[in-house]
Amino acid sequence: MTQGTALTARTIPGTVLSIDAMGSDLGPAAIVAGIAGSAAKNPNLRFIVHGDRPEIERLIDRRRDLSDRCEIRHADGVVTMGDKPSHVLRHGKNTSMWSCIEAVRNGEAGAAVSCGNTGALMALSMIRLRKIEGVNRPAIACLWPSRNPSGFNVMLDVGADIRADAEDLLQYALMGASYARNGLELQRPRVGLLNVGTEDHKGRAELKLASDLIERVSHAADFDFVGFVEGGDLPSDKVDVIVTDGFTGNVALKTGEGTARLIRELMGEAFRYSPLSRIAAMLAYTSLRRLSKRIDPRRVNGGVFLGLNGTVVKSHGSADATGVSAAIKLAARLAASGFNERLAARLAAAEQAAAAAIQSEAGQA
Amino acid sequence: MTQGTALTARTIPGTVLSIDAMGSDLGPAAIVAGIAGSAAKNPNLRFIVHGDRPEIERLIDRRRDLSDRCEIRHADGVVTMGDKPSHVLRHGKNTSMWSCIEAVRNGEAGAAVSCGNTGALMALSMIRLRKIEGVNRPAIACLWPSRNPSGFNVMLDVGADIRADAEDLLQYALMGASYARNGLELQRPRVGLLNVGTEDHKGRAELKLASDLIERVSHAADFDFVGFVEGGDLPSDKVDVIVTDGFTGNVALKTGEGTARLIRELMGEAFRYSPLSRIAAMLAYTSLRRLSKRIDPRRVNGGVFLGLNGTVVKSHGSADATGVSAAIKLAARLAASGFNERLAARLAAAEQAAAAAIQSEAGQA
Repeated sequence: MTQGTALTARTIPGTVLSIDAMGSDLGPAAIVAGIAGSAAKNPNLRFIVHGDRPEIERLIDRRRDLSDRCEIRHADGVVTMGDKPSHVLRHGKNTSMWSCIEAVRNGEAGAAVSCGNTGALMALSMIRLRKIEGVNRPAIACLWPSRNPSGFNVMLDVGADIRADAEDLLQYALMGASYARNGLELQRPRVGLLNVGTEDHKGRAELKLASDLIERVSHAADFDFVGFVEGGDLPSDKVDVIVTDGFTGNVALKTGEGTARLIRELMGEAFRYSPLSRIAAMLAYTSLRRLSKRIDPRRVNGGVFLGLNGTVVKSHGSADATGVSAAIKLAARLAASGFNERLAARLAAAEQAAAAAIQSEAGQA
Repeated sequence: MTQGTALTARTIPGTVLSIDAMGSDLGPAAIVAGIAGSAAKNPNLRFIVHGDRPEIERLIDRRRDLSDRCEIRHADGVVTMGDKPSHVLRHGKNTSMWSCIEAVRNGEAGAAVSCGNTGALMALSMIRLRKIEGVNRPAIACLWPSRNPSGFNVMLDVGADIRADAEDLLQYALMGASYARNGLELQRPRVGLLNVGTEDHKGRAELKLASDLIERVSHAADFDFVGFVEGGDLPSDKVDVIVTDGFTGNVALKTGEGTARLIRELMGEAFRYSPLSRIAAMLAYTSLRRLSKRIDPRRVNGGVFLGLNGTVVKSHGSADATGVSAAIKLAARLAASGFNERLAARLAAAEQAAAAAIQSEAGQA
């Protein structure tokens, strides 16, 4: 029976994650399959699963040993992809998304994972978890396949807010560096600011100002600032953290994913083209699988909300079991590393340096 | 001898193109190699080549039959990648870029091609060729590999101007539709507006306004407006023309190119990984070449400046002979189709519809 199990961070050792089972394009089955995959790989994980109890119970009971590690929290309501964030804030108390965030707020879970409506998830997270002191705009950070040794770069913001002024971009740099330290285990991350050229005179006015601010704070905040980077540098090994506003970041993220998807499809067509190419595909199977895995967007599924009192991972709405499992893995790593506490401490320490830099900038203007 | 040949649109039948031989990262040799490639494929082409006469002469004389089809115009100066546009406008009269644009201005050539500094080329083109009446901001349009029957979509602006208000975006829609008609031979192009989501409430305020304006004008301007599209739709078959501001477009273009480059490199590594994968690569040679050609950024080299009294094609600064040849092919096609005259006529016709839409919008506000 799953009903009676109470799994909280306080009572059971290991990492507890709060999972929104509803709101995914593929329904709760994909979410539970993702939970099962993660549970099999990591025996320390426990889950609080939010949504329609009968349906979730049926799905979990089908999987061996999963019911002992899951506590189900029933929620009548579901946030749909079309719901406006403001509507969810006013009328969403009965939804699985709200319940999912609440378990992090109460300290029962170390991190939350949801496939639902991004805008609503961000709005709920902001209101219920609140921003870390000193943070103006929270951001969503994603991992980006790159030539770096870890195989990834970090980019933020990829869609929390369509606006970002110079001070916001400075905070993104601080939060992104902290995420790269904990998520990619980089001692001294290299931070770059996304622009349309690397020359000083290029780009919007707020980017020049942000560049000055980030440069001044970089020493105290223990990262290297590499200056402006371009779209072509996103998968490069010259930068670890790419800072941009949420509009540009979202377009870049989806453009990169779309390009990779097109090439994967064309590659598949190329290998189905003739009998000879089909034989070639069989011979190259291992190599092709390795390549395919490297550029599979499901593997880097999971945008992390930065700047809140609690870790929230947004999975793709259309994520399948592999994608959900990747998002859960990321959430588990961040929860286990105490990432959010470290981020808050870093931000507080950098606050002084940043404030000094901004004041001096204002004095000059 | 190349010195005495005077090739102008008036004296010699066929298409005359004005080519800036300097300012490329790879030097004049790559440009002349590109000219030679294009000349071999298209016997109707003639060239006016601008730059350092002794060097260009030496390069052209080495190629059989090329000297008869090229007129060299000597220029002492070269616009470098680091030169500010304002500096080039004031002090650039002796440069090959200036001379290259001048040949289009004088009606000697049907289109100009340059690999040089984009900002300087746009500034020079604006001042010397002037904007088409009614155009506020010219734009740079690029071709984007897609699932459409033609294999391409059009995206603009990809870097002429980092700003664009709603009226500018409307003009981009009109110019892009005209380009798709002439460049991709589409009777009724489908136009989309790039945003971070397809829902009506998503994105910046100017995008909502632009969406209304484009919708109202689409019928009179003879294109279909498909509404908001996302980064993932750029290579799709649901849209032919993607409209965005020059900052976002430039980041998206370079992100797509960078992603494709990374995957090509990883694919190469995958096929060199083991003896078996090397054999597979040999067997799949034809299929892989077809794929590689389809996603080769050199094949879509050439951003077209739209909204000026004259056609200017900007080639990548690092374009090799294949890339330069692709840019020349594009310039030749546009020059031969009388594209620019048609674009001006379209804009004039759409002007009235647009003005009516904007006025009615202003009346409501």
